[in-house]
Amino acid sequence: MAGKVFFSVSMSLDGFVAPEPVPGGDVFAPGKQDDPQVRRWLAQWMELQQWIFPLRFFRENLKLGEGGEEGRDNDIARETFERTGASVMGRRMFDLGEQSWPPEAPFHTPVLVVTHSKRDPWERPGGTTFHFVTDGIEHALDQAREAAGDRDVRIAGGGETILQYLNAGLVDEFSVAVAPVLFGAGTRLFEGVDASRIVLEPVRADPTQRVTHLTYAVHRR
Amino acid sequence: MAGKVFFSVSMSLDGFVAPEPVPGGDVFAPGKQDDPQVRRWLAQWMELQQWIFPLRFFRENLKLGEGGEEGRDNDIARETFERTGASVMGRRMFDLGEQSWPPEAPFHTPVLVVTHSKRDPWERPGGTTFHFVTDGIEHALDQAREAAGDRDVRIAGGGETILQYLNAGLVDEFSVAVAPVLFGAGTRLFEGVDASRIVLEPVRADPTQRVTHLTYAVHRR
Repeated sequence: MAGKVFFSVSMSLDGFVAPEPVPGGDVFAPGKQDDPQVRRWLAQWMELQQWIFPLRFFRENLKLGEGGEEGRDNDIARETFERTGASVMGRRMFDLGEQSWPPEAPFHTPVLVVTHSKRDPWERPGGTTFHFVTDGIEHALDQAREAAGDRDVRIAGGGETILQYLNAGLVDEFSVAVAPVLFGAGTRLFEGVDASRIVLEPVRADPTQRVTHLTYAVHRR
Repeated sequence: MAGKVFFSVSMSLDGFVAPEPVPGGDVFAPGKQDDPQVRRWLAQWMELQQWIFPLRFFRENLKLGEGGEEGRDNDIARETFERTGASVMGRRMFDLGEQSWPPEAPFHTPVLVVTHSKRDPWERPGGTTFHFVTDGIEHALDQAREAAGDRDVRIAGGGETILQYLNAGLVDEFSVAVAPVLFGAGTRLFEGVDASRIVLEPVRADPTQRVTHLTYAVHRR
């Protein structure tokens, strides 16, 4: 049986999934962290993601060492990882990640990168292989589905890539971890959403100490 | 002991508290409901507020008759009403309401209307009296606090008035009922928020069948 296509992101209460882009964009590049704009970007991004960093699963998956918090947030992070048989991501997310992931990238599955530039597959230790797909989001998803087998396909990000899949009617379900933070500016998750065609069905709401995890099934009208 | 200043609104998952304004704006005026744009506005607004209409408290408060749903949503609606000793609202919300509230308006307390036009107090049956305040949001709040006694002051709306109070550091706490709907366009609750000065502390999260009620305390930094 084929798996689902889903996304799962952290969102500020005012709807942002990333702070306002910094000129140049490569916030994780060596030396960049001295730039005050980059420092501000990273501080905001950390606020959004702060529920993840203390988790046992996060530490385990990035080989940061023993320990870390257990509980509902940790279970959700682990379940999201375990259901994922392949991921799809946009070029910009890949470019940022290429600078910040450790050699053993945290996916441990095939990752389909939607891009305009051809490139040979890039195999990393630990089971992550990046495949570069130049013929559009539907082909990238087809390849991800095939790679995932009966597990699910995660549209990993960034925001624009997620929205392309959502508007194309290719997303079955999604989760947002609503963080107790206001950004005021940045990349909005639902900017440009084709709202008139999308009906959301609430599936689950899991409030934890740090965030509220909201899960919806997506239907078309 | 003085009460708190709070607001409580329904918000779409993409951050809107009202659909895109209709030219003219008076969507509740008699005869207007034949206009397709107005019908669309009302349909979206109903989707956002749909958790409220079936409630026993809502029916009771507007004298729509017996019956209605009980449960957590109903308790929350009733608690929000009962804690409120006075409300503050903007001129546009008042203008819309003047056309749609029944003679016995649903506040049953003093309501301070922030406006530029002087007008005598307007007393309605059932305990609601509208007072028109022309010297700014702080004076309106002072009068509301005095009227509320030891109960709380609700900043009732609309979105722009709420944001003025939030940015002025005058809101202690707020609740959003996150509805499972995407608007794509309209009035954003947090448009223009002074995000760098606001810290949110999660107080409570109540998922119900229809919406997720999120409550935050507001601190300054």
